[in-house]
Amino acid sequence: MREAAEGCARAGIGFIGLWRDKVSETGLSESARVVRDAGLRVSSLCRGGMFPAVAAAERRARLEDNRRAVEEASALGTDVLVLVCGPVLGRDLEAARVMVEEGISELAPYAAEVGVKLAIEHFHPVLMQERSVIVTLAQALDIAERFEPDQAGVVDAYHVWWDPDLYRQIVRASGRIFGFHANDWFSPKPDLLLSRAMMGDGPIEIRRIREVVDAAGYGGPIEVEIFNQDIWDAPGDEVLALTKERYLQHA
Amino acid sequence: MREAAEGCARAGIGFIGLWRDKVSETGLSESARVVRDAGLRVSSLCRGGMFPAVAAAERRARLEDNRRAVEEASALGTDVLVLVCGPVLGRDLEAARVMVEEGISELAPYAAEVGVKLAIEHFHPVLMQERSVIVTLAQALDIAERFEPDQAGVVDAYHVWWDPDLYRQIVRASGRIFGFHANDWFSPKPDLLLSRAMMGDGPIEIRRIREVVDAAGYGGPIEVEIFNQDIWDAPGDEVLALTKERYLQHA
Repeated sequence: MREAAEGCARAGIGFIGLWRDKVSETGLSESARVVRDAGLRVSSLCRGGMFPAVAAAERRARLEDNRRAVEEASALGTDVLVLVCGPVLGRDLEAARVMVEEGISELAPYAAEVGVKLAIEHFHPVLMQERSVIVTLAQALDIAERFEPDQAGVVDAYHVWWDPDLYRQIVRASGRIFGFHANDWFSPKPDLLLSRAMMGDGPIEIRRIREVVDAAGYGGPIEVEIFNQDIWDAPGDEVLALTKERYLQHA
Repeated sequence: MREAAEGCARAGIGFIGLWRDKVSETGLSESARVVRDAGLRVSSLCRGGMFPAVAAAERRARLEDNRRAVEEASALGTDVLVLVCGPVLGRDLEAARVMVEEGISELAPYAAEVGVKLAIEHFHPVLMQERSVIVTLAQALDIAERFEPDQAGVVDAYHVWWDPDLYRQIVRASGRIFGFHANDWFSPKPDLLLSRAMMGDGPIEIRRIREVVDAAGYGGPIEVEIFNQDIWDAPGDEVLALTKERYLQHA
């Protein structure tokens, strides 16, 4: 946490997206202090969600955990909690989708009370069995539009670039976009989760997507989110320098 | 070819789907004879397509190859040619999609003349960089509906199970469904192409999809299409016996 925050500060990057597992390692108030001391702001907290579970008690436990995630986001000074909604259960895709909708419905009033927006992340369909049954921007918006315009879909280039309906849905998402994740597609994929590429190393038209997101009125921070072990293993300052360069070139 | 055909005959399976690379190894007329001698019929020929290419000369060469594929389908006694439409070129997804539409438009009149239907296969989005920029049933139908109702989208459980719009699109596809591929999802995926599972070993509601396909009026053969090295390496008769059992249980 400290290494990342200080690296961002040195690289002139003003925001950092935090993950709860790292926040938990460092401690909540210490994390807030580290970010503040580095002169940064938190762009979002990741992640709430994981709503589907077979047992009702487990679903209640997860809802409690989501309420804590909302509180942590607030304590870290960000108003965006990213929701990774959760995978299919066995073969019952429909049931999992219903549990996601119920979970968000139950969480939303509390989030609104605390002043935190729920950013429903729509995942690449290849991750449906591991991460989320919400796999298109249209589907995320179908849920988000049931609420006041302070719950919506994060746009993640990696997850959405394939969608023939993408640009129309981004326009539809106007006023409900709470984030933009820049990254690129990497193929072949020895690992479905970790095979994301540095911007510019894959086939995604990141700038085109970003421009449509801009036109749809999103003016918040853009997060670079690249799950890739090679990048994670590289020296932090080099990664940040390359990230800045590629961001300016491609995003 | 002979081993597969004779195995199907022994197992009481009446149709076989053929691939052009195997047909080419055996020879076209010999392939037709092997299938006929085994008492089978050909459910479809796979594959035409692969329309996008940077050079115009290469696109023309591919169109010629597609015309040969149409003739081969006809010679093999099937009226269905499956189109694997082709991947993105560099970062220009739009250009690749336009080339696919142009390729199909150029091929369709000849296919109609010969009496062969073009079955536009819509691929799982994870395969967009390797196989096809046509990644939803809706997108395949948007193209197919420009033609007489004898060009349409093959439904493949593996490719479509994630789609929130699936059942609505299958209903829309009524009269334009020329095939149904039964298989299951396999995750993690050491290989994106080969990681398909035997029916029943994954999360796909194959029967539910099949029933909606039935209700949409499809009455043709159902193909079991499982790209999986372990299954390919197992003894043929065992695979066919398991396939029959799982088909009856799950499809």
